Amino acid sequence: MNVSRRIFLAEVREQPAALLTLLEQLDVFVAAGRACAARKPSAVRLVGHGSSDAAASYGVYAFGLLPGWTALRDSISLSVYYGAELDFSSSVVIGLSQSGQTPDVVSYVERARERGALTIALTNDPGSALAERAELTLPLEAGEEQSVAASKTFFNELAALALLAGSAAGREDEIWDGLRRTAVVLADAIPELEKAVAPLAMAFAYVGRMYVIGRGYELATAREIALKLTETCRVAAEPLTSTDLAHGPVAALDSMFPVWTIASPDATLPALIDAAKRVREAGATLVACGSAAAEVEGAAWRLPVPEAPVPLLSPLLSVVPGQLFAAALAEAKGLDPDKPERLTKVTLAQ
Amino acid sequence: MNVSRRIFLAEVREQPAALLTLLEQLDVFVAAGRACAARKPSAVRLVGHGSSDAAASYGVYAFGLLPGWTALRDSISLSVYYGAELDFSSSVVIGLSQSGQTPDVVSYVERARERGALTIALTNDPGSALAERAELTLPLEAGEEQSVAASKTFFNELAALALLAGSAAGREDEIWDGLRRTAVVLADAIPELEKAVAPLAMAFAYVGRMYVIGRGYELATAREIALKLTETCRVAAEPLTSTDLAHGPVAALDSMFPVWTIASPDATLPALIDAAKRVREAGATLVACGSAAAEVEGAAWRLPVPEAPVPLLSPLLSVVPGQLFAAALAEAKGLDPDKPERLTKVTLAQ
Repeated sequence: MNVSRRIFLAEVREQPAALLTLLEQLDVFVAAGRACAARKPSAVRLVGHGSSDAAASYGVYAFGLLPGWTALRDSISLSVYYGAELDFSSSVVIGLSQSGQTPDVVSYVERARERGALTIALTNDPGSALAERAELTLPLEAGEEQSVAASKTFFNELAALALLAGSAAGREDEIWDGLRRTAVVLADAIPELEKAVAPLAMAFAYVGRMYVIGRGYELATAREIALKLTETCRVAAEPLTSTDLAHGPVAALDSMFPVWTIASPDATLPALIDAAKRVREAGATLVACGSAAAEVEGAAWRLPVPEAPVPLLSPLLSVVPGQLFAAALAEAKGLDPDKPERLTKVTLAQ
Repeated sequence: MNVSRRIFLAEVREQPAALLTLLEQLDVFVAAGRACAARKPSAVRLVGHGSSDAAASYGVYAFGLLPGWTALRDSISLSVYYGAELDFSSSVVIGLSQSGQTPDVVSYVERARERGALTIALTNDPGSALAERAELTLPLEAGEEQSVAASKTFFNELAALALLAGSAAGREDEIWDGLRRTAVVLADAIPELEKAVAPLAMAFAYVGRMYVIGRGYELATAREIALKLTETCRVAAEPLTSTDLAHGPVAALDSMFPVWTIASPDATLPALIDAAKRVREAGATLVACGSAAAEVEGAAWRLPVPEAPVPLLSPLLSVVPGQLFAAALAEAKGLDPDKPERLTKVTLAQ
């Protein structure tokens, strides 16, 4: 086994430790959360690409459920390319970027600040262009991420968004404690999960296309797992909500087109179970991860995780089987997850 | 050729006529647009599934560029499943559903109205549950759509959103006239486009996976074309923005994984051209549709359409080569686009 292929896996394993490092920054998050609340925002606008955009999907739920604010993954092109005259004066803007260099995210944040938004950079590099342009910077504290495929960046972005939203709602102690306990249970669970994904990776070595399905805050998880499978394993893996599946894509399924589902014990679970039933009826192989994986009938493979101490934190646990599976599948296919073809760690695409 | 396989195609051809029928309802749209403007909304929340959700992506740009309002494809699960306590009092809500029966869209609109939003139903059935629950109903006027795969519903949803956003901005005459001229140029263009897609369908008969790439308001087009290819041709076709492509998915491309690009002559075109270059470098076949298709270097196939009379209306033209290609590809594969497997016209999924 090539040592260079192990950076991604090592960074997945580092996630509990990275989270504990982030939690040392509670004061910074509380101050930012209070500044957001003082703004009484009509919208929290989240912008990022790739894994950071997947994390932004989670932010919609963190802000919606904790302070009860409307949050959205905003269109970057509407402002940066088309110059739309939107009112940013009552907005909080959060730019997410591991490197802090993503050009259109930097441009968006710059423009939003000029137009009166409270701007926050969430980045691993406090000296980056993004951090410079934003009014406030929140450290991701993920440590250096050497693998091109992100893992702990996404993981700490989720934690940071939960902590910021909790601080905005005055519930930082509850979220902080939930995150701390999440780090502990995850550290315990990783060795078993690594064993569990190994046979699945062997079975999936020739899979060319997959759907990854989650709903509610697990949509962020679905987006991140699909992205990992696409970039590290060259699988055409598309994320869908459980309801999206029924509105068209189910027609494409067959025995060569497996579906990965993310099952957490919340109010969206019946919709996920309903989607899983459609998958089985189409003759497609069903994988279930998440702490409610046992409730997904007919799953050929189950990758259960411990229940999250706070339901909103479930994605921090349910994403990990997907990351570990991507690492194992890349290895089974002879691919290097640390250096996917045609990708670089810092993407400067327009 | 089986006659039953021709309903989808017939409905694609009916789109210019359906649009002209919609345009007879200008007064209804102007009244609704004025009601929206009177609300001075802090957000326009769009909800729908499948093609209606693709159209919602367009609404983000129509409202952002015409009245300059923040519009978002809202999370249905946040309100309907999780019961988030969001402030809807300064929101306009638009529920999109061909049948007006989509359960969680109806629930969302009902809840939003209770919480003070101005609610608007955009549906083909003014007697539907959605129309009943919403304060205002805008007719889609697409006529009966018999094919399970939607075409003219999506098309008229785009037109309706443009007309509503134009009316909200007091620019209804300009948009109305642009739409009328769009219907005329499209009717002229369809016969040539049908000829142009035929050889492409033959060449793509064995394609299993594709990306469909557009940016800005052409993201809606990309989402709809990808959905058509998925449900009628059983291709795993994923929509991406041109920038998404560079943030991971480009790593999965090879000569068996073609990419369809949508090129319109607006400020996002350089980003699309940059993405197309990455596609070619990966050795993937490149298809370019849209009125700026000629500017996409290295495209193996080009499906140009006439330039839209108003740039924002470009998707009404650029979606059509994708619809016609889906019809032709389904036929080449021996599939029935009118009745995709496991789908029904009215989706009652949770």
